Amino acid sequence: MEFTIKIRQEGLSVTLPVTGGDLQRLRRLNALAALSALRAEGPATLTRLAERADLARATIKVVVKDLMELGWVAQMDPSGGEKGRPARRYRFRAEAGRVIGLDIGAHKVLAVVADLDGNVLHTTREPVTPEQPRAERLAAVDRAVDACLAGSGTAAADVWIAVAGSTGYVDLEGRVVLSRAIRDWSSVPLTDHLGARLRCAVLVENDSRLAALAECRRGIARDTRNLIFLHVGRRAGAAVVLDGVPLRGGGGAAGEIGVHPLFNLGHVGELLQAVPAVEPGTPPDAVAGAVFEAARRGDVEARRAVLRYVKVLALATTAMALTVDPDLVVLGGGFSRSADVLIEPLRGELETMCLRTPELRASVLGDECVAVGAVCYGVEHLSKMLFNPEIGPLSAASPLPIMV
Amino acid sequence: MEFTIKIRQEGLSVTLPVTGGDLQRLRRLNALAALSALRAEGPATLTRLAERADLARATIKVVVKDLMELGWVAQMDPSGGEKGRPARRYRFRAEAGRVIGLDIGAHKVLAVVADLDGNVLHTTREPVTPEQPRAERLAAVDRAVDACLAGSGTAAADVWIAVAGSTGYVDLEGRVVLSRAIRDWSSVPLTDHLGARLRCAVLVENDSRLAALAECRRGIARDTRNLIFLHVGRRAGAAVVLDGVPLRGGGGAAGEIGVHPLFNLGHVGELLQAVPAVEPGTPPDAVAGAVFEAARRGDVEARRAVLRYVKVLALATTAMALTVDPDLVVLGGGFSRSADVLIEPLRGELETMCLRTPELRASVLGDECVAVGAVCYGVEHLSKMLFNPEIGPLSAASPLPIMV
Repeated sequence: MEFTIKIRQEGLSVTLPVTGGDLQRLRRLNALAALSALRAEGPATLTRLAERADLARATIKVVVKDLMELGWVAQMDPSGGEKGRPARRYRFRAEAGRVIGLDIGAHKVLAVVADLDGNVLHTTREPVTPEQPRAERLAAVDRAVDACLAGSGTAAADVWIAVAGSTGYVDLEGRVVLSRAIRDWSSVPLTDHLGARLRCAVLVENDSRLAALAECRRGIARDTRNLIFLHVGRRAGAAVVLDGVPLRGGGGAAGEIGVHPLFNLGHVGELLQAVPAVEPGTPPDAVAGAVFEAARRGDVEARRAVLRYVKVLALATTAMALTVDPDLVVLGGGFSRSADVLIEPLRGELETMCLRTPELRASVLGDECVAVGAVCYGVEHLSKMLFNPEIGPLSAASPLPIMV
Repeated sequence: MEFTIKIRQEGLSVTLPVTGGDLQRLRRLNALAALSALRAEGPATLTRLAERADLARATIKVVVKDLMELGWVAQMDPSGGEKGRPARRYRFRAEAGRVIGLDIGAHKVLAVVADLDGNVLHTTREPVTPEQPRAERLAAVDRAVDACLAGSGTAAADVWIAVAGSTGYVDLEGRVVLSRAIRDWSSVPLTDHLGARLRCAVLVENDSRLAALAECRRGIARDTRNLIFLHVGRRAGAAVVLDGVPLRGGGGAAGEIGVHPLFNLGHVGELLQAVPAVEPGTPPDAVAGAVFEAARRGDVEARRAVLRYVKVLALATTAMALTVDPDLVVLGGGFSRSADVLIEPLRGELETMCLRTPELRASVLGDECVAVGAVCYGVEHLSKMLFNPEIGPLSAASPLPIMV
C-alpha cells in the first residue's frame, strides 16, 4: 500500500512505499491531518477533505473509513435538493466526548457541559456565599456537576476533561495558592476532589484568565491578540493575553495586579458607597447597580462615586498597560453590565496616563464567561494532547481505541 | 546527483533523486542546515558536521565546498599535536560581515563594531548632554560610528546591519515617538539618518529592551526566560522579557512603566538628595554615588534616602511583577554599580507586596549593556533574514552572492 508524504516547506511532493512501523506512523499522521482539517473547516466531501489535508483521495478514503470505525468521524445525511446523487459529506463527531467547564466564584458555582467542539449543551447554577466553608462550596460544585450531567444526558464516563475556573492565585500545577475573595479556599485540593469524582483529566485555572480566553475565542476580542481582561465588580481583577494566549507567568501569578497595595482592588467597590441617591436599606448586592443607575440619570453624587471607582481602576490598568502595551481592554465581570457609565470616564483617565491608550470594549459573554473559557481551555488542551503527533499517541489520553 | 532529505518529525529517511528547481532549493536548504549547525556548535570536521546537520557525508562535502567559495565558511589550520593526519575542520566565517551596535543616551553615545557571531571588535564613546540639540547628538552618533569603523579597520561596505538603542518610547517601526530623558529627541528620524550614512539595514529599539536582551544572551540572565530588566539611575525605566524575547507589546510601549504618574520614575533620583553626609558642592552627577557610599558605611540619613528611592522602585516593580509574574529582576543602569546597597532593601519591599517574589540580580555587563544588546539584536535579525529559508533567499539581504 502506498501513502503520500508532502515535504511542505519546500513544496516538493514524492510518493514513498513504506511498511511496518513506518506504515503505522504514517496512518496516524494522515488520520490526524484529516481530523484536523475536519475540525478546522467543518464537514466536507472526500474530495474536499483530500485537498484540505493535502493527501491523495485514495489515501483519504482509507483514513476516513478508519476514523469512522473508531468513532471520530460520521457520515452526514445527504443534503437533498441537489440534482443527481450528492457527494457524501463527513464530519468530526464532536459528540464522541464531553467537556465540563466550571466557574467557582464567591457568589455562584456555574457548571456547563459541552461537546468536543466546545458547543455548550447544558448549564447549571448553584448559589453560594463568600463566607461558606470549603466543604459546602465543594458540595455545591458536586451538585452543579451532577445536575449538569443529568440535564445534558451525559454519562460520567463520556467526560474526557473537566476545567475549573477559581478566584484567587492559581499556580502552574492548578493549585489555588491564595484566595481573598472566598473564605476558606486557599490551598483547596480542587484538582484531586474533581479527579476523584469524575475520573477524567482535570485542570484548574484562574477565573479571569479563563474569562479572557473566552473573550478571545468566542467573545468581543476575537480580532485581537494582545489585551487585558479587566474583571470589574465589588472586587476587581485582571488577566493578560499576549499573542492570543492568556499569560500565566513564571508561576501562575500574572494578572494578579489586584493585590498591589496602591490599588487595593479587593476593596474598590467600597468607593461606590455613601451615595445619597441610593435609598437607605438597599441590600449590599444592589448598591453598585443603584449607583450606576443614578449616574446614568445624571445624578452628580453618583457620577462622582463612579469616577472615584474608575480612577482606581484606571491607575491599575495603566500600570498593566505600561508593562505589556495591549491593544484592547475588555471590561468583564458583574459591573460590565453598566459598561455604558464606566467606559467613557475610564477612557478619559487612561488617555491622560497611557502612552498608547488601548481600545475599551465591554464583555459580550455575560456571567457564563468563565465557564465558557473553561470549556475553550479544555477543548484546546484535548486538541493538543489527542491530535498532536508530537505529544503522544491518541490512545494515551483518549477513551477511544488507538488510531494506528 | 542525489541529495538526502530526512522527514524529521517521523524519523523516516529516504533518498530522493531531484533535478532543476528542486535541486536548487535542496542545495540551499542543505547549505542553511550546514551553516546553522556550524554557527550553533562551532567548528567541526565534515564527519561531525554531517551528523549535526543530519546530512550524508557526501552531501556535506559538496555543501561545504559551495559555502567556502561563497565566503561563508573557512577551513581552519590543522591543529597540531595529534597523531596521524588530523581531519580538516571548518568554521563559520563570522568576519564575512560586520554589525554596528549603538547606545544613544542622555550622557553618552556608545558605538561598537562586532562580527557576525556578535563578538565585539571595537568600542567608541562620545560624551553628550541631555540638553544638546538634536543635530549635535546626531553628529556625536556619526563621530562615534566613524571612529569605531576606523578603529576596527572596518569598511562601511562590510557593515550588514546597524542597531541603535535609544531612550524613550520607540514604536514597532523604530520611531522614537517620545523621549523625556533627552531634550529635542522625540520623533527624531534616526533610522533614516543612519540608513543614509551607512547604506545597510538599520533597526532602532528602546534601550532598556536591548539591555534586557544582552543580559539574557550574554549576561546574568542566561538561565532565565521570564524577567524584568530594571534600569536604575537618576531616571528609572524597565523592560519585560517573556519566554526569552523582549516584549514590545501591541505598539512598542511595553515596559514604559516609568511614565506612570504614581511612580514618576523620571524623577526618582531626586529622592536621593538632601542627605547631610553628602558634602555641599558635590556635582549633581556624583550625588547618588556619594549617598550610596554613605549608606554603605552605615550613615542613617543616607540609608533612609536609599530606602525612599527603593520604595518607589519597588512599587513600580511590583506593579509589573503582578502583571507578568517574572522569575527574575535584573538591576541594570548606572546605579546598578551600587546594587550591594540596593538589592537587600528592594527584596524586602518586594517580599511584602508580590505574590511570588522574583529573584534579584545585578547586571554584569556594565555600561556597554545596551550596545551589546544592539549587537545581539542585529545578529539575531540577520540570522532570521539570511539563514531562514522561510523568509527569503539569502541573496536578498546579503552582500554575498546567492547560494543555490
